[in-house]
Amino acid sequence: MSKLKFKVVPGSVVAPQGFLASGVFCDIKRLGTGKGSNKGQKRDLALIVSEVPAIVAGMFTTNQICAAPVKVCAERVQAGTAQAIVVNSGNANACNGKRGMKDALAMTALVAKQLHIPDEHILVGSTGRIGVTLPMANVREGILAGAQLLGNEVACADEAVEAIMTSDTRPKQIAIEFKLGGKTVRIGGICKGAGMIQPGMSATGARPAALPQGLHATMLCFITTDAAIEAKALHACLQEAVANSFNRITVDGDMSTNDTVLVLANGLAGNAEVRSQKSGVKTFQAALNHVTLELAKMIVRDGEGVHRVVTVRVAGAKTIQEADAAARAVANSALVKTSWHGGDPNWGRIIDALGYSAATVVEDRVDIGYSAPGSRKILWSLKCGQPTKATFKELCTAAAPKEFDLHIRLNLGKADALMYAADLTEAYVDYNKGDVTDPTTLGG
Amino acid sequence: MSKLKFKVVPGSVVAPQGFLASGVFCDIKRLGTGKGSNKGQKRDLALIVSEVPAIVAGMFTTNQICAAPVKVCAERVQAGTAQAIVVNSGNANACNGKRGMKDALAMTALVAKQLHIPDEHILVGSTGRIGVTLPMANVREGILAGAQLLGNEVACADEAVEAIMTSDTRPKQIAIEFKLGGKTVRIGGICKGAGMIQPGMSATGARPAALPQGLHATMLCFITTDAAIEAKALHACLQEAVANSFNRITVDGDMSTNDTVLVLANGLAGNAEVRSQKSGVKTFQAALNHVTLELAKMIVRDGEGVHRVVTVRVAGAKTIQEADAAARAVANSALVKTSWHGGDPNWGRIIDALGYSAATVVEDRVDIGYSAPGSRKILWSLKCGQPTKATFKELCTAAAPKEFDLHIRLNLGKADALMYAADLTEAYVDYNKGDVTDPTTLGG
Repeated sequence: MSKLKFKVVPGSVVAPQGFLASGVFCDIKRLGTGKGSNKGQKRDLALIVSEVPAIVAGMFTTNQICAAPVKVCAERVQAGTAQAIVVNSGNANACNGKRGMKDALAMTALVAKQLHIPDEHILVGSTGRIGVTLPMANVREGILAGAQLLGNEVACADEAVEAIMTSDTRPKQIAIEFKLGGKTVRIGGICKGAGMIQPGMSATGARPAALPQGLHATMLCFITTDAAIEAKALHACLQEAVANSFNRITVDGDMSTNDTVLVLANGLAGNAEVRSQKSGVKTFQAALNHVTLELAKMIVRDGEGVHRVVTVRVAGAKTIQEADAAARAVANSALVKTSWHGGDPNWGRIIDALGYSAATVVEDRVDIGYSAPGSRKILWSLKCGQPTKATFKELCTAAAPKEFDLHIRLNLGKADALMYAADLTEAYVDYNKGDVTDPTTLGG
Repeated sequence: MSKLKFKVVPGSVVAPQGFLASGVFCDIKRLGTGKGSNKGQKRDLALIVSEVPAIVAGMFTTNQICAAPVKVCAERVQAGTAQAIVVNSGNANACNGKRGMKDALAMTALVAKQLHIPDEHILVGSTGRIGVTLPMANVREGILAGAQLLGNEVACADEAVEAIMTSDTRPKQIAIEFKLGGKTVRIGGICKGAGMIQPGMSATGARPAALPQGLHATMLCFITTDAAIEAKALHACLQEAVANSFNRITVDGDMSTNDTVLVLANGLAGNAEVRSQKSGVKTFQAALNHVTLELAKMIVRDGEGVHRVVTVRVAGAKTIQEADAAARAVANSALVKTSWHGGDPNWGRIIDALGYSAATVVEDRVDIGYSAPGSRKILWSLKCGQPTKATFKELCTAAAPKEFDLHIRLNLGKADALMYAADLTEAYVDYNKGDVTDPTTLGG
C-alpha cells in the first residue's frame, strides 16, 4: 500500500469543487405514540448536491431485510450518474412495505423538483428506528428548507453531518487534498454509525456466497470528489476501499438493514480521467482508502458506549476466509469484549473464541500479544499456546490504553485479516435497552 | 413427545440407589498473583461416586481448544464403564499444556487410590479461569477430604452442587422418579452454567460438519441413574436429550473449552435392561429429556446478569439448519438482547437479525409475536412483514414478563427450531469486566 501523504482540508463533503450541502431540523423522529417529538432539535435532514451531474458508485447492506432507500439507491447507481443525495435520520424507513418505497421515491421526487435535477439522479438514505413510517409532511418541509440553505461553506457541511447522526456523540467527517496528474484533487466524506454496526456490504446489496457475520447500528457514508474518474474505476476503487474499512469494523455484531456508502465524482478538478489500470488509479485508490478508513475508525471510536478500540490482527491462518472468521469471532465475543472493557488481558477468552470460530486452530501453535496501535513492538502473552513470562501487571498495562492492537498468530498458513473492534460496556446496554415509557429513547 | 408425569424427589445425584457425593473447600481459585485466595470459602471440589461400576455416556464441547479434563473424559467414556467423577471449580485446567493433562490424570489417580476403583473408571471435570495451572496440593487435600465425606444424604448432594458453581448465583439440581418395566427408577442431575454459555456438544468432542454458533461460560452437568440400560441406548438417549436442551441454550454466545455432560447408570433399580428400540427406551428418553431440559433452563435463568428469559421459537424455515441459524441469530443479537432487557418489543431488531442470518428470509412473509411460556395465545406484532394493529402498549405488556416466548414464522418451509435465550444487561458486563486490581474477580 502506498504511503502517500494527504493534506487534510476543512469542509468534508463541500471541500471538493462544485459540491453544496445543507442540514435542517424537521422533527422526523416520531414513533406514532403521540409523544416522540425530537426534543433536542438536532438537525435530521441533509442534502448533498453536485453542481453538475457526477459519476456515482455505491455499496449496500447485504442484509436480506433492506430498507426502501437502499433499494432505490442500489437500482439507481447502476446507471452510473447521480447529482444529489437526500438523507434523513431518526427513521430508517425500513420494513414499511409499499408505503416505505413510496415515501423514499417521494423524497427523491421532491428534491428533483426543488433542484431541477432529473429524479433518477437523486439518491436517498435513511437511518433510525425500523418499522415506523416517515412523517412525510415534515420531510417535505425539511427538503424545501434544505434546498434553500444549500451552500459550500464549511458550516453547511457541519450542518449536513449533524443531520445524519443518530446515537453518534460527535460528527464524523474528513476531507483531503492531493495531486492527481498535475491537478489538485479533493475527496471529502461524512459518515454516521454508533450501533447496529458490522457492515457487510456489496455493490448490489446481493449476498455474497460467504456471508460476513455482520453486526449493526446503521452506518451511512457519503463521499464527494472533484476527481474525474470513469464509472468502472470508481466502482472498483470503492469496492476495495470498503472491503478494507467499513466491512472490517464491528461495534455490536449486528448488520443493519440500511448500511450505505455512496461516492459522487463530478470531475471539476479537471484531471485527466482516472481509468482502471492506468497510472492515476493507484493514487486515487490510496486517497479513497485513506478517507474510508479514517471514517470507519471514527465509527468504531464513537460506537455506542465504546470505551476501548481494539484492532484485532490475525495472521497465519490457513485461508483468508479462516483469518476473517477468526478475527470476527474474537471481535464479536461478548466475553472478550467485556474483558477489554475491564482492561483484563484475558487470553483464555480469546483462544476460546478462536477455538469455536470457523477457523482451524491448533492450541499449541497459537500466539497472542499486544502492541500500541500500528506498532511492531509486541508484548506476547501466549506463545505456542503457553503463557509467556510476561507478568499479569505488564499485560494489564498493555491492555489499558484506549486503543491497542491485539495480535493473534495461528501459525498454520499465510492468510491475514484484521477487524477494528470495540469493547462492550454497561453504557452500550443502557443506551440500547432504552425506556419504553419514553419511546423517544428507543434506538434503531 | 410423551407427556409422562415424573415425581420430583430430593437429593439430585444421590437420589438414585447406590450413588454417593461430597463437596469440599480446598481453595482452588488462585491466579498466580500472590492474592487470589477464595475469600468466600465456597466449596470448590466435588465427588460423585457409584457403589458399583456404571454404564457411562458423555457429550463434550466441540471447541477446538478443549481442556485437559475434557480430553480425558472423551477418551475414557468410549470404554462404556465408569464409577466416579471428580470436579473442581475456580480453575478450568484449560490451555495448561502437558502440565494440564498431567494434573487431570493426577486427579483421577488420587480418586482411584482413595476409593479403590480402577483409574480408568474415574472421570474428571473442571471449570473456571483458563490458562492457570491447578494448585495440586490443594486439589489433593480436597480429594482426600471429599473421599472421607462421601454420603447419600441430601446434604451431600447439596454440597457437591455448591462445589461446581462458579458465577452461578444458585445451585441447579433435580431428581425425578418414574416407573420403568414395573420397577421404580430415578434420575438425578446437577449442573452449573452462568456465562460462556452456548454449548455445541458432540459425543466425541469432534466438530460436526455444521458448526453450532456457540456461546460460553462453561456448562457442566453430571447425571446419575439407577436404571439398567445398555451403553448404546444410554449414548443415544443422551445425544437426543442434549440436542434438545443444553445445545439449545445461549447466554452470551461463547462456546466454552470445558462443556461436559456425563451420565452414569448403575443398574441398581433392577429393571429389565433398557435397550435401543425396545419398549423401555421411550420412557427413559422422556425422563432424561425432562431432567436435561429442566437443568438447561436453570442455566439460562441464572445466566450472568440475566433478567429475562426468552424462548425463541422459529417455524416455517426452509430447512432445520436454516431454522437453527435464524433462532441463533436472534438469540445472540446484542441489540435484540438489550431490547429484551429494556422490555422493548422492537421487532425491527429481530427482523434485522433474521435478515443477516444464514437463513433465507423474505420480508413480506415474516410474522413475529409474543406469548406466555408454552402458550399458543400469541399477540402478533408483525404479520407478513407489516405491523399489526397491536398497540405499542400491548406489545410492551407482552414483552414485560420475566419469561416469555418469541414466535417467529418465516413461512417459507416446514422446519422449526427453538433457542432458550436471555437478555443482555449491565450486570453481565459489570460481572465479566471484572477488576484487574483484584484478580479474584476475574472470570473464566
